[in-house]
Amino acid sequence: MIIAQSTYSIFIESKPNAVFTEWLSTQSYDQIFILCDEHTEALCYPALANLIPEHTIITIPPGESFKSIHTCTAIWEELSSNLATRKSLLINLGGGVIGDMGGFAAATFKRGFDFIQMPTTLLAQVDASVGGKLGIDLQDLKNLIGVFKNPNAVFICTDFLQTLPKRQLRSGFAEVLKHGMIYSKPYWQQVSQIDIDTCTEWPEIIAQSVRIKSAVVERDPLESGLRKILNFGHTIGHAIETISLRMDEDPLLHGEAIAIGMICEAYLSAQVAGLTQEALTEITNVLMRYFEHYDVSKISMEELMEIMAQDKKNEQQQIRFSLLESIGACGYDLLVTEQHIHDALQFYKGL
Amino acid sequence: MIIAQSTYSIFIESKPNAVFTEWLSTQSYDQIFILCDEHTEALCYPALANLIPEHTIITIPPGESFKSIHTCTAIWEELSSNLATRKSLLINLGGGVIGDMGGFAAATFKRGFDFIQMPTTLLAQVDASVGGKLGIDLQDLKNLIGVFKNPNAVFICTDFLQTLPKRQLRSGFAEVLKHGMIYSKPYWQQVSQIDIDTCTEWPEIIAQSVRIKSAVVERDPLESGLRKILNFGHTIGHAIETISLRMDEDPLLHGEAIAIGMICEAYLSAQVAGLTQEALTEITNVLMRYFEHYDVSKISMEELMEIMAQDKKNEQQQIRFSLLESIGACGYDLLVTEQHIHDALQFYKGL
Repeated sequence: MIIAQSTYSIFIESKPNAVFTEWLSTQSYDQIFILCDEHTEALCYPALANLIPEHTIITIPPGESFKSIHTCTAIWEELSSNLATRKSLLINLGGGVIGDMGGFAAATFKRGFDFIQMPTTLLAQVDASVGGKLGIDLQDLKNLIGVFKNPNAVFICTDFLQTLPKRQLRSGFAEVLKHGMIYSKPYWQQVSQIDIDTCTEWPEIIAQSVRIKSAVVERDPLESGLRKILNFGHTIGHAIETISLRMDEDPLLHGEAIAIGMICEAYLSAQVAGLTQEALTEITNVLMRYFEHYDVSKISMEELMEIMAQDKKNEQQQIRFSLLESIGACGYDLLVTEQHIHDALQFYKGL
Repeated sequence: MIIAQSTYSIFIESKPNAVFTEWLSTQSYDQIFILCDEHTEALCYPALANLIPEHTIITIPPGESFKSIHTCTAIWEELSSNLATRKSLLINLGGGVIGDMGGFAAATFKRGFDFIQMPTTLLAQVDASVGGKLGIDLQDLKNLIGVFKNPNAVFICTDFLQTLPKRQLRSGFAEVLKHGMIYSKPYWQQVSQIDIDTCTEWPEIIAQSVRIKSAVVERDPLESGLRKILNFGHTIGHAIETISLRMDEDPLLHGEAIAIGMICEAYLSAQVAGLTQEALTEITNVLMRYFEHYDVSKISMEELMEIMAQDKKNEQQQIRFSLLESIGACGYDLLVTEQHIHDALQFYKGL
């Protein structure tokens, strides 16, 4: 299936196939590079390798801690030593780290050459691969360095989801639930019933999530307004993710942190944005059914506030939130007090 | 005087003045940062400091060797620790290194915030500050990493030229001569008569160079065609500059290397692009009058070819040149043989 954007197309297929090779045959690249991590090289690359006669593979270690200027420099150096030009193509085969960092590397090497996203995780398929946000972390501040640039195409292969550990699948599912909460009550009602372990409807679910994300991004590509609703759950969620990466031996995955963030921000939504108590309870119950409770008592408010002060949505040194008015409708640029944030964490803690 | 671009304005004044403060008063930035190097902090910043009530100054060491991912990371970290936001402004006060790297830092921090160029060298005033090319060097490959993004305004203050060593002024003048060679014979005839040491017409000269560069860039902002003519002299010139930076104790300045490159590429122009011998002689004589002869016998053809193979204009692994058809007219995407390049260096050597 194809979801057309104004400047590129998103293809949803079971695996890399003739749809991909036909697209490629209409282009004229002088060289093709494939960026993988060690996992996707082993598990996904074989399905792609035979479809591209000549290519160079660049492999990096897996994990968020490698989404750094250091790894990005290594990618630039590989491109440079293999004489990549402005007429080359980079295929980003992996999760959000590969897509965000590979896209950033391509968008900045020789001031930019073409890249396509081939997301292999549910998180990347419904979220990171669509919308043109590229970037890397600086120290441990997530995506602090980056640009907006659309890929030349996105190829979503749903068979790749079978390569994922269940925990990764569940993490990506947090963004699916978010799309329902911020944009479509019917979609929320549909997806909040899904049994992740036995689900067979991924292509339809992914397509619907991609449509919601695309619709929002097309209306506000540079995040000057509406697009900020996609950050629901992410102001607190990103900060918790950062802290967990700093201190936990087995840190939270992105979606797990965002699930906590969504509960906290649903609480804030009930305080300042008009979300009903009933809706807050429904959201909390659904999220707690999918995600294990996390011990937030070890999180210091001071550290949390300090990290949120770096949030890219902020203006005039104020922390701005995207909050739900109801299930299916989200506002943005909303201010809350530090006490509210403290209370939101206490609310989560008491669940 | 104001030269209006489609998306921003270029102001040419003697020094930072009410034109600047009026422009600033129409904006609404939450914080203002000024990027300097140690020279411009001492020599230029005082003329600007009082015009901006509150600001944060970021200072880096001077010189091309600091146009690196390492220094850029230090700038990002300063912005981050001072809580720069997407509503902040960065003023790049310096030469090409400051403008290119500061612009790149601003274009990528939080996926981009506003910046203005306040170029302090002749080179930056007539060249680097106009056209939206931003970037840093990777290892010693010049501007290998970067993006295209226009500044929000350019403020050219011609009094800053008085802070420059004569050698720096001469270096920038190479680009002025280039603008004549590639685009306007009358301008060439005018500027090739100038005595740099006593010249008092800088505002008019700069305005004319900026108009030429702007006219070219506006027609092809992403360098898919015409804009490549601005690279005349730069294919060989950049490579010589890179080699000189690697091996000379007192390396060539950019314009000095470009002057050598322009002589070599004028020779190539006579071989393959129809430039007359008479025009070649004229160009050579003028350039040799302004720039000292450099000993190219220490340059290895192999190293030169290897560096040129990285040139951003290349396609299909072929080195592409921008060459003069006559004085005032330039072609691009032209191929020459390695023998031609060898002969061009020999031609320069024999001068």
